[in-house]
Parts: sequence; C-alpha cells; structure tokens
Amino acid sequence: MMSTTTSKPEIRLAGWASTMQRSLLRQMIGVVSQPGILSFAGGLPDPALFPRQEYAEALAHVLATDTQALQYRPPFPPLKAHIVKLMAQRGVTCTEEQVFLTTGAQQGLDVLTRLLLDPGGEVLLEEVVYTGAQQVVAPFRPRLLPVATDLRTGIDVDAVEKWLAGGAQPAYIYVIADAHNPLGVSVSQSKRQRLVALARRYGVPLIEDDAYGFLSYGRPHQPPLRVLDSEWVFYLGSFSKILAPALRLGWIVAPERLIPKLTVVKEMGDLESSALTQRAVAAYLDAGHLPAQLEKLRQAYGRRRDAMLAALRRYFPAEARWTEPTGGMFVWVTLPKGINTAELLEIAIAQEQVAFIPGHAFAAVDCDVRHCLRLNFSNCSVERIEEGMQRLARVLKAAC
Amino acid sequence: MMSTTTSKPEIRLAGWASTMQRSLLRQMIGVVSQPGILSFAGGLPDPALFPRQEYAEALAHVLATDTQALQYRPPFPPLKAHIVKLMAQRGVTCTEEQVFLTTGAQQGLDVLTRLLLDPGGEVLLEEVVYTGAQQVVAPFRPRLLPVATDLRTGIDVDAVEKWLAGGAQPAYIYVIADAHNPLGVSVSQSKRQRLVALARRYGVPLIEDDAYGFLSYGRPHQPPLRVLDSEWVFYLGSFSKILAPALRLGWIVAPERLIPKLTVVKEMGDLESSALTQRAVAAYLDAGHLPAQLEKLRQAYGRRRDAMLAALRRYFPAEARWTEPTGGMFVWVTLPKGINTAELLEIAIAQEQVAFIPGHAFAAVDCDVRHCLRLNFSNCSVERIEEGMQRLARVLKAAC
Repeated sequence: MMSTTTSKPEIRLAGWASTMQRSLLRQMIGVVSQPGILSFAGGLPDPALFPRQEYAEALAHVLATDTQALQYRPPFPPLKAHIVKLMAQRGVTCTEEQVFLTTGAQQGLDVLTRLLLDPGGEVLLEEVVYTGAQQVVAPFRPRLLPVATDLRTGIDVDAVEKWLAGGAQPAYIYVIADAHNPLGVSVSQSKRQRLVALARRYGVPLIEDDAYGFLSYGRPHQPPLRVLDSEWVFYLGSFSKILAPALRLGWIVAPERLIPKLTVVKEMGDLESSALTQRAVAAYLDAGHLPAQLEKLRQAYGRRRDAMLAALRRYFPAEARWTEPTGGMFVWVTLPKGINTAELLEIAIAQEQVAFIPGHAFAAVDCDVRHCLRLNFSNCSVERIEEGMQRLARVLKAAC
Repeated sequence: MMSTTTSKPEIRLAGWASTMQRSLLRQMIGVVSQPGILSFAGGLPDPALFPRQEYAEALAHVLATDTQALQYRPPFPPLKAHIVKLMAQRGVTCTEEQVFLTTGAQQGLDVLTRLLLDPGGEVLLEEVVYTGAQQVVAPFRPRLLPVATDLRTGIDVDAVEKWLAGGAQPAYIYVIADAHNPLGVSVSQSKRQRLVALARRYGVPLIEDDAYGFLSYGRPHQPPLRVLDSEWVFYLGSFSKILAPALRLGWIVAPERLIPKLTVVKEMGDLESSALTQRAVAAYLDAGHLPAQLEKLRQAYGRRRDAMLAALRRYFPAEARWTEPTGGMFVWVTLPKGINTAELLEIAIAQEQVAFIPGHAFAAVDCDVRHCLRLNFSNCSVERIEEGMQRLARVLKAAC
C-alpha cells in the first residue's frame, strides 16, 4: 500500500551521525562562557602567558626570509630535530624519522584511530576520560572496554589485564599517564611498567596522550610510557599547552615503518600541517625561548594549582575529596554521594556566578560520577581562584 | 598442531590500512621534485604570487592587537562575513550561519565524508578525479560508482542518471564543476542543471569542490552548482589557491541545520582551525587586498595557460588532443593510444629533465588513460613553459 503523504526527502547521514550528540562538555562550555561568570570550567591555558611577541617575531622572520614558507611543503626537518630534543627532556630517545607532525594532538589521535581501528572494533579506555578521545572513535561505533581509575595511582591495570586475558583485542589502549584530563592523576611507576608489559604481551598498542607532559609543578613528571617501549607505545605531543593552541601543531612519536602509512591517513584529513607554522615554531625554538617559557608556565600554573588546593582544604566540606595533580590544568573533586553536580552547577551559576564541569560530562560509559566535578586552575589568577573557590564553597555549604 | 616458530607480534592495523598504498600521484611528485627537473607535475601555485608582505602585516597586526588570537576560539564571525561576500562574487547567496570553516578544502571533504558515508557505502565520482577525493573514502572501503567525463562538457550526467535510476544510493556525488583537476574541463550549463535536478530527485547530495572557482582566465566561470540548490549542494571553498596553501584554511557552505553536526565531526579531526590564521586572513581581507590579488593571479596564470596551449598547438604531434581550461592549473593531454605515459615520463626525465603526471595516477577505477597525462601551468614562468614544452615535444617525437 502506497503512502498518501509524500515527505520531502532529507539528506541521509551516515548511521553513527544520525544519532550523534554534541559532547556534553562542549555544550556546557558554551553555557558557562557567558560574561560575568568566574569559570573553572574550560580547559584553557592562560593567554597572558602565550609568547605572543616572540612568536610574532618568529613569523615575521620566516615570512621575510623564506619565499616558500606559504607553499605546500613536506614536514620541516628542523622542527622534527627540535622535537627530538624536546622528547629527550621527557627522557625519551627517538629519531627524527620517528617524529610525525600533526595538526595538534587531537589530529594525532584521529590519525592513529583511523590507522588502527576497524568499524565495530574494540577500544580500551578509562571510564572517565578526555572527551576528544571519546569523540574520535564514535564514527566507528566501537565496543568500548572501560576500566576504572584509581585517583592516586591512575588507570586500573588489573582491569586492563582482565580484558586482555579474557580475549579482548582492542585496537589500542588510550592512556594519559601524566596530569590526566579530567582526573588530575598521574600513573604510578609500577603501573606504567605493568601497562607496557601487558601491551607487549598481548600485542595491543598503547596511545599515550602527553598533552600536559611538560607542565609539571615542583618536580618533573616521571618519564612517559614511551621510555619503556618504542614499538608498542605511540606518543602524542602538542605545542598547544606549552606555546599556544592556535598553532594547531603537535606530533606523534611512532615506529618509523608506520610513518608512510600515517602520512596517507593525515593527507585525507588536511593534506599537511601549515608549512608556515612549522617554520615559525622552529624559528621560535631556534631563538632559544622555550626553556624560559616552560619555566614561566610551571611557576604560574604551579602557584595556581597550589592556590586551588589550599582553597579546597580551607573552604570545602570535610567529606569532599580531590586529586592533587603534579601538573596539567585540572583538579577532580569527589563530593558526598547524593550531591548531583549538574544541579549544583545551575545553582552555582545562578547564585554565585561561578562555574565548573560536572563529572558526568567526561563519562565514556555509564558510571557513577554524578557527585564529582572538574576544576580548571590554569585560566584564572590566584586571586580569582581564591574568590571563585569561596563562592563555590558557599554553594556547597547550602547544598550539603 | 602448534607452530614451532614463535613470530614476534606485529601491530594490527585496521583492515583497509593493511592494504593501503600511498597514492601514485604523491609518490610521483616525490620522484619528479628533484632539483634540475623542469616540472609540470605538481599542483602547486606559484609562491612568487603569494601575498607574503601583506599577510605578514596582517599577522603582525592581529598579534599586536588581539590578546586572544593564539587561544582556542570559536569560528571567527568576521571571517565568515568575508566568505559570504566572496561567495557572492561566485553568484552564491548564503548566510554566515551556512558557512563552516575548515582546515583547507581537503578537511571539508573529509568532514562531509565522515558525516555522510557509512562503511561499505557507495560514492559516485568520475573515473579520473582529484586523488584527495579517492583517498578520503578509502577507509570506508566503499563501492565506487564511476562515471566518465566528456573532455568538453564535463561529467557524464547520463551515466549519473543511470546509476541513480538503477537504484544506487550513493552517500554523495563528488563534482568539480569548474577547472577540473586533473582534466581542466568545466561542466556545461545544461549539465549543471540536470545534475542538480538529479540530486534533488533522488535525494543524493552533491559535493561541489570549487578549489579553483576564483581562478578563471578571460571571463569568470559560470556560477557554481550551489547557485542552483541550497539544500542538495555542499560547496567546498579554499584560500589555498587564491592566497596560500600554508594558511590551511577553507570552508563549506552547507544547510544551516547541519552545522552543529559538522562541528562535532571537525572536532574529532583537529578541534578547530587556527584562531590566529582566521583572524589574520580576515585582517588581510579587511585591508582590501583581495581584488588586486585575484586580478594578479588571473593575469599571471592566464598568460601561462595561454603559453601552454600555444606550445601544445605548436610543438605537439597532430594526433594529440588536449583540454582548453577556462581556469585552474591543469591541462589534460590525450596522446595516441599505445603510448604509455608512465614509460614516457621515465624517458622525459632521463633525456630532457622535464616532468608531468601520467594520467593513470588519477584513475579512481580501472580505466583507459594510460595514454593521457596532466600538465600543470601555474608553477612555471611563461619562458619555462615554452622551454619545457619544447623538451617534452622532443620526447614525444621520438616516442610516436
């Protein structure tokens, strides 16, 4: 029987896309970015700490001296040489031939996902994790293999082993070993070794997202996983947090034999990363600005972390718990069960004009983090942190 | 029975990736980029025509005046407003809300492919077509629905209709309506109307790649397909060919309701396009440089096209045929059958140090273009074109 109504045809989307949602996190950041809100919500570095003048000089120098700087070009070897030296600062030995330039670490993750993951394949990741890692696998409609995270020692390696010993064959294990986003935890040394041993034993690569690896406060982070294995660990690095996000420049350290394949996958996405940016960042690094820049960031963000932790101790209810990050940009706060931080956020904005991200926004699978929240400390001055935490404590006091 | 040799486990790649090849085109461009080779091979604009000084000024201005220019930022509305005005120059009426910024037109194609194509789905495209369009669908292992191209009137619309009437349901039809890469042909007006009518009737979107739309010589190109339908035509634009590739900046014109979905897909790939570049390009456009820049490109490339066509008439064998592009960067030459242009290239490089791309490098499916070749005319001076075409004619004379 024919239908009597003729509906206007609509553009057919791919199966995964017809059901997709914008990430809760991104939606929230829109809501809490209103003027007048004191925000601990975003994951933004402080633009006052960007090397604006030095980068402007680097750009001017490159444009004045290199007639090919605006052309299509292969990856710029001097930038790779700088990255090899940067990696040595993290204790990683690698060669220029193992460095693959990307349009930010997010593209690194995207390129690796396309290289490794089949539609309907498996991905092992933490229950609560950077939303960009969740988004990038969504079109593959993968089976997610979730593991918990211990808030002092990091990813639950027993749970990883259980999946692998049970026959799971994930395309990769996604890990943030240092200064986890959103949890603010770093993985303990013994867990790092076990994790890499598992990757080797079961033949499952680790993708180590080290976006915050150079932002350590007090003492340096432990060496990344890549130090322990050069075959089974793909390392993701980024200039976004140490120089500036608008560079859109990052890198993968990968086995050399896979670089040609990564090149093909990257070409699909954007052909290549900006030749101008590659040269300007190399010129900035040539000029020797980075050590002072890193020191400035570590000092400033370290003070802000200290201020936030002090305020948590001073103003937050005794039942609250939080991580004590050794670096990065985030503290994860666990409130008494029963408190719903999504509701708390509404009250916080309405009554005290202060914002954070409810923990649930980072849940890759259904898990019990509705009483948790993420605080960012990199984007506010110490004074604003003090002020904002007092406001937040007032909201909490009324709610608890 | 157990194997007695224990092989070292290898990283498992996604199914499509384990068989992928670097595109023949990209491999060849590597080979023919040796110093000393007079090359008509690449698809490169001429760096001497880049607005290097003006763009340097725009960057310096933005970095000196905008403290947020290096931060994560939402798409920059003034740049979208400029793109709306640019589109009007192509006869396209659109709104800022329909403009979606991308990291080059390649990312536009990638984002649309991820939005529209399911694994194993169908894509309708020309047999001989831009290799980036072939690469971007490869991970989906699609069924390609190929159609031929008439070298005077463009894509074979009868063949398109045959696929659609026969029940094919491609995720999209990929079209370069003006100054086709590699064929140098533009689609006739009557075919444009039929193509859009087919898209509407069968509910299949067109992706119109207009990378060369602003590079027309003599008189403007016809209005793009997007003029004929705002619902079923996705328009891809790029600053790479009119300003410079290293900006990595392009745009999609799409139905407004799909912009949020495109945003999610783009975030997977690189979070966002550089806030700095968006602001610098807007500042360049604010300063009013573009009309003179476009005029300069049209004059220079137009003369080069004329020189190449004149040389083809003067030096090439009478049996050769070629397209007469109204814009863009490429001429497609058809030699007598029996000549293998891959072999010809080896001779041309060895004996005359001149290079081109054999037609076969652009074949999306098995098709008979081994006697064809692509010549680029944008990257050489008129004098070098004259010299190179004489060399090429000598090679041909010996071969024919």
